Amino acid sequence: MSAARMPAMSKSLVVQKFGGSSIANADRIRRVAARIARERATGGDLVVVVSAMGDTTDELLALASSITEDSDPRELDMLLATGEHQSATLVSMALHALGVPAIALSGAQAGITTDGNYGKARIAGIDPKRILSEIEAGRVVIVAGFQGQSVRDPHLSEVTTLGRGGSDTTAVAVAAALEADRCQIFTDVRGIYTADPRLVSDARQLPVISYEEMMELAHQGAQVMQGRAVELGWVNHVVIEVLSSFEDLPGTLIKEDPFVEQRNKVRGLAHDRNVAKVTLVEVPDRPGVAHAVFAPLAEAGVNVDTIVQNVGHHGTTDLSFTITRGDLAKTKRILEPIVRELGFREMTTDSAMAKVSIVGAGIQNAPGYASRMFAALAEAGVNIEIISTSEIRITCMIAEDQVETAVRALHKAFALEEPEPLLQGELAAEAGGGSGGTSKTGA
Amino acid sequence: MSAARMPAMSKSLVVQKFGGSSIANADRIRRVAARIARERATGGDLVVVVSAMGDTTDELLALASSITEDSDPRELDMLLATGEHQSATLVSMALHALGVPAIALSGAQAGITTDGNYGKARIAGIDPKRILSEIEAGRVVIVAGFQGQSVRDPHLSEVTTLGRGGSDTTAVAVAAALEADRCQIFTDVRGIYTADPRLVSDARQLPVISYEEMMELAHQGAQVMQGRAVELGWVNHVVIEVLSSFEDLPGTLIKEDPFVEQRNKVRGLAHDRNVAKVTLVEVPDRPGVAHAVFAPLAEAGVNVDTIVQNVGHHGTTDLSFTITRGDLAKTKRILEPIVRELGFREMTTDSAMAKVSIVGAGIQNAPGYASRMFAALAEAGVNIEIISTSEIRITCMIAEDQVETAVRALHKAFALEEPEPLLQGELAAEAGGGSGGTSKTGA
Repeated sequence: MSAARMPAMSKSLVVQKFGGSSIANADRIRRVAARIARERATGGDLVVVVSAMGDTTDELLALASSITEDSDPRELDMLLATGEHQSATLVSMALHALGVPAIALSGAQAGITTDGNYGKARIAGIDPKRILSEIEAGRVVIVAGFQGQSVRDPHLSEVTTLGRGGSDTTAVAVAAALEADRCQIFTDVRGIYTADPRLVSDARQLPVISYEEMMELAHQGAQVMQGRAVELGWVNHVVIEVLSSFEDLPGTLIKEDPFVEQRNKVRGLAHDRNVAKVTLVEVPDRPGVAHAVFAPLAEAGVNVDTIVQNVGHHGTTDLSFTITRGDLAKTKRILEPIVRELGFREMTTDSAMAKVSIVGAGIQNAPGYASRMFAALAEAGVNIEIISTSEIRITCMIAEDQVETAVRALHKAFALEEPEPLLQGELAAEAGGGSGGTSKTGA
Repeated sequence: MSAARMPAMSKSLVVQKFGGSSIANADRIRRVAARIARERATGGDLVVVVSAMGDTTDELLALASSITEDSDPRELDMLLATGEHQSATLVSMALHALGVPAIALSGAQAGITTDGNYGKARIAGIDPKRILSEIEAGRVVIVAGFQGQSVRDPHLSEVTTLGRGGSDTTAVAVAAALEADRCQIFTDVRGIYTADPRLVSDARQLPVISYEEMMELAHQGAQVMQGRAVELGWVNHVVIEVLSSFEDLPGTLIKEDPFVEQRNKVRGLAHDRNVAKVTLVEVPDRPGVAHAVFAPLAEAGVNVDTIVQNVGHHGTTDLSFTITRGDLAKTKRILEPIVRELGFREMTTDSAMAKVSIVGAGIQNAPGYASRMFAALAEAGVNIEIISTSEIRITCMIAEDQVETAVRALHKAFALEEPEPLLQGELAAEAGGGSGGTSKTGA
């Protein structure tokens, strides 16, 4: 525990985060407030982080688009941040109505400072002074998620936003700064599943998953939680629980998993339909070409995912890479002059791509997973265009219209519907009476 | 000119304020941006103050009401302030789209500090450093109206709002702080009229009106401009122009009017339907009673307008006063125990009241206006319940359903439809070639 929290040491401190769909209207806000009040009644201290209500962020983006196609990033951040200001104050008011002392704080008021990278700012630090003094005063603190302020000097503080899903990051960062006992992410699903339950009817909820596995799932398209937030939790040893805001059920814990190596090697599947492929055909095979292609993309903020270079003939190669579809038009605009200048034969693009991934910490120690994956896809008639791997993940790019077929085939091939047996260490913990899942990790 | 503005001394500086209906949707925002761009093209510096879009403030209030009937004032201010954050950024974006450098600033960023009186904060000061540095950098500065920040220490800054029509106050205060040449208030009407043109078809637009007259009109119900803002302009010698945001026509100037004493003595009429009357019957006529009645009302933020005490008999009097209708329920709740405690006979209330006023700086020097007013109302069959006067105003409380009849009768009785003849001093100014109306006053 930090010195700052000394006075409250004996109490538990939980950070709860509610996403946009959980607070989409007045009714749901009141329901969330009731839930917060129940938690509060257990006697612990509480900090709540909220996203904007429902589709507010998209509506504000649409409003900006109706004014100009090319919004200034600084102005856009100031605009978008209002969504969380609104929801934070409304949740606070709903708590007041229940007789629970509460106060809404903007990102700036909550002491969250970021770099100046509008639209995808990174948290530089949290000064929890104000949050702690409000907790001391007996209030539930409602923090506007997704935002912070970049400060050069007090007269030049600017509102910044953390990018899509940034409220998860806010919640975990606040939990880390306050050394909270738990960071609960309330969502419209019950937790983390072996695959998207909308695609796979017998997808199974995982009771626990390691940070590393969750990061891979998030990065490969599982939309329940942001990879950045998971990473932040990992670095700061924050125990994260993903759970439903509509049902009172245990969720999935994301934490150090001491048993990770002993588990079923594939923990879950992720898929992502937001993939476009760009291929530069007959690229001259000489030093500096990759830099000439990828430097201007990075500068323009295009996130390049997988890059594959095929061995060529006659001193040329083909260079393929994947990006999100939203970046495709920009990427073509940037690369067209470069393609001409460097003498590539042509640039081809495919915007109807997707990727499916198997993820599991055990994959790195056991061979044969790749071949089982390829076999399952081949058997289901799914053509693999690009393969990429990490230590705990294998990803295949496929045509978008084959996603469902692929995910179902893989779920079956790895028998993910079968519950994982309790491992020896876990059995011991259960017998010891500790609800291993709900106490703070020793890590 | 202040030292702060020295570098820009040679240039003109205009503050323009656009109200909610002027920027109610993307289309209107683009039109307002085009207007700003035109003004900007004339070469002067520009600061623009905006209200929230259309009915945003009312919608946010409704949202808060749907959560709780008794919103916390601090949270409500933080909620409402988002409306102007949004409109300011959108106007800025629309200017960018026209190639005009611009930047949106929140009240806090614009250096506007207030007292801590949520919901009706008063501006304590403006530190124009940031605004000036943005002007220096060649930008049009868009300031979110209606708001400021109350600062105890940097960790405890809170968003405050200035109350209804507060954007007018922001505009005039910013104009004063920057020693602007003019503060233009763009509205959905063409200027200040002799009476509400919706009630009186031959109501006439005034080319110029004095601060004092405008304040009285505003306080008596003319909704074009806030009385507070006019007062602030008066104290700081800010020339204010009220004009249409939809038509390119000269508006009404509010400024020191050296000819005010020579003009037609009644300049305009105002009416206000938002009046409720409370009468305390048979009030014991002893010291301290008025204090016992009005102190708790003041404490509860009830604005008491006119107070009339009728001479009584048997040591008691009747005490009547007017308030806005929204305060009636609260007032009854507060006074009921006091009525019992102090031994009044009863409390009666009437929520269907209104007031009509005649306003003109000349009234104070010439007798007979009151009797002409009462005669006109009597002739039209309008019963007067309470009369109150100031040096330049006479107000009659009447039944609400007689407002139109009363206003038309008074407009006719004082021949307000007839243009005022140019006075000798004005003729000289015209002949001198100066468009007396559009230059800065010497005051």
